[in-house]
Amino acid sequence: MKILITEMLEERGVTLEDIAKIVLEIQKSYLPNLTLEECIMHVSKVLEKRETQNAVLTGLVMDMYAEKNMFPEPLQTILKEDKGLYGIDEILALSITNIYGTIGLTNFGYLDKSKIGIINKLNDKTNGKVNTFLDDLVAAIAAAAASRLAHQDEDVVI
Amino acid sequence: MKILITEMLEERGVTLEDIAKIVLEIQKSYLPNLTLEECIMHVSKVLEKRETQNAVLTGLVMDMYAEKNMFPEPLQTILKEDKGLYGIDEILALSITNIYGTIGLTNFGYLDKSKIGIINKLNDKTNGKVNTFLDDLVAAIAAAAASRLAHQDEDVVI
Amino acid sequence: MKILITEMLEERGVTLEDIAKIVLEIQKSYLPNLTLEECIMHVSKVLEKRETQNAVLTGLVMDMYAEKNMFPEPLQTILKEDKGLYGIDEILALSITNIYGTIGLTNFGYLDKSKIGIINKLNDKTNGKVNTFLDDLVAAIAAAAASRLAHQDEDVVI
Amino acid sequence: MKILITEMLEERGVTLEDIAKIVLEIQKSYLPNLTLEECIMHVSKVLEKRETQNAVLTGLVMDMYAEKNMFPEPLQTILKEDKGLYGIDEILALSITNIYGTIGLTNFGYLDKSKIGIINKLNDKTNGKVNTFLDDLVAAIAAAAASRLAHQDEDVVI
Ligand SMILES: [Ca+2]
Ligand SMILES: [Ca+2]
Ligand SMILES: [Ca+2]
Ligand SMILES: [Ca+2]
Repeated sequence: MKILITEMLEERGVTLEDIAKIVLEIQKSYLPNLTLEECIMHVSKVLEKRETQNAVLTGLVMDMYAEKNMFPEPLQTILKEDKGLYGIDEILALSITNIYGTIGLTNFGYLDKSKIGIINKLNDKTNGKVNTFLDDLVAAIAAAAASRLAHQDEDVVI
Repeated sequence: MKILITEMLEERGVTLEDIAKIVLEIQKSYLPNLTLEECIMHVSKVLEKRETQNAVLTGLVMDMYAEKNMFPEPLQTILKEDKGLYGIDEILALSITNIYGTIGLTNFGYLDKSKIGIINKLNDKTNGKVNTFLDDLVAAIAAAAASRLAHQDEDVVI
Repeated sequence: MKILITEMLEERGVTLEDIAKIVLEIQKSYLPNLTLEECIMHVSKVLEKRETQNAVLTGLVMDMYAEKNMFPEPLQTILKEDKGLYGIDEILALSITNIYGTIGLTNFGYLDKSKIGIINKLNDKTNGKVNTFLDDLVAAIAAAAASRLAHQDEDVVI
Repeated sequence: MKILITEMLEERGVTLEDIAKIVLEIQKSYLPNLTLEECIMHVSKVLEKRETQNAVLTGLVMDMYAEKNMFPEPLQTILKEDKGLYGIDEILALSITNIYGTIGLTNFGYLDKSKIGIINKLNDKTNGKVNTFLDDLVAAIAAAAASRLAHQDEDVVI
């Protein structure tokens, strides 16, 4: 299942390395010796979680079907325009970070606002692509991986 | 929008009165003078909330497309069989109860397990219908309405 | 730390076995071969989690100081009378179940309402004891242990 | 009760205006005509919510008693040093933002990391003061007020 999830993300334009770079960016000030390889490993572990897999399976189908105008109105327009008060995209993403405690949650809130790296690119709406769910899923996976790192640093295994 | 949401629920076999009956059932021991009319009014207020509307719009489309076998695997099978560890249906439903504080949340947990009234009927999988999201949405709307009642009883307006 | 937490719970009148009995009660219909020993093992694992330890450390001090009338008003009265709309006791308890996904959460909601076993005894307010936090902590630990069991049954390790 | 809560915050060094300034700071790029007076009004509305009042009542007592070394170990040291993996301070704060939907939550995550204005001052640990709970409560109240503003802008009343 993890391979399928990884492939689905890649087809939508996001590699594990893209997500790992965000993790490195937000954690390097706390952990100066942190490498991209370690970040990739933590991202990979987050993708093994059933909560992550269910959220990605569901969210990416929503993006793809919205891109193909397959939803009835008003949902179609809400998804295509990524309206600020929709919130289901963040809700789905939060199901990934929840299992990493409050650190996962605050990391997600920060990434959701600061839009680092690939997240910023996904928000570009000029190319017909719909990434309403994907940007939040990527932020959540990065936030969860960063939380794994922080917990691990204090000898906690999640 | 509330009218659209109400119609969508009715098309899937759930009336406001069905939901209000659940509210009456779980609150009548605390509030012996509670009427079905009052419960309908509180359910109606919950349907005015944007969080409720977004969750219903999204969840019912998921159920309908799963019923028509429109999703790729493995999502199609997961949704059709309402697998215990999917969890996105409950996640969506919780976004409705969250705004009513912890009372909303514990009410939802209780309804999700005890499956009172129409919720029990929706869980019947012998008729080809897919209600993977609908049963949790109904439980959440009833839980939210029950929480409104409980808060109101102590002069809090939500 | 787990030993300290276990002792603190025992001093407040709750043994691991008391909590395990609740787990057995709510899971035995799904898992007929489940033993009390297995339930104790899962409760024990939940007590190893930092989230559980922090919630227990904090909640039990609140109960003990409320019992000794050590808080300023209006907090003292709110805690002593376990007022329905306080909610911080449930909030703390939910931090334990959150890391076990939505199953943890719905299990908690169910236990919080149905008050099985020791939880019912803790709600007895006729003896001067204050268990405002303890009853929710016990429900949350039992709910978390039950979720571990359910996940394990499908080869997921938490 | 709102007056008591406001006084408690002031005694711990935080005025409504301090919190309103954070709201203004994070919202002025979206709403260029926003005034400090409006922000104060929204902060004031958040302080009327029972969830806010319970969280402030509880968190400030924790800070004050930790400052006076009134807690048993290991809780006393955990609170005094505001250890990264404690998390109960954020949990309490999140109970304030939860009722404002996901916007409240992501705003809180952002403020918790970026530590704007008074929040930064509260994190100064060189003066013997314990603000383990206060910094998160202030971030949460500001996040909730910012969410009220955002919702209001789209004609939603919370
Ligand atoms: Ca989005
Ligand atoms: Ca379901
Ligand atoms: Ca309680
Ligand atoms: Ca803090």
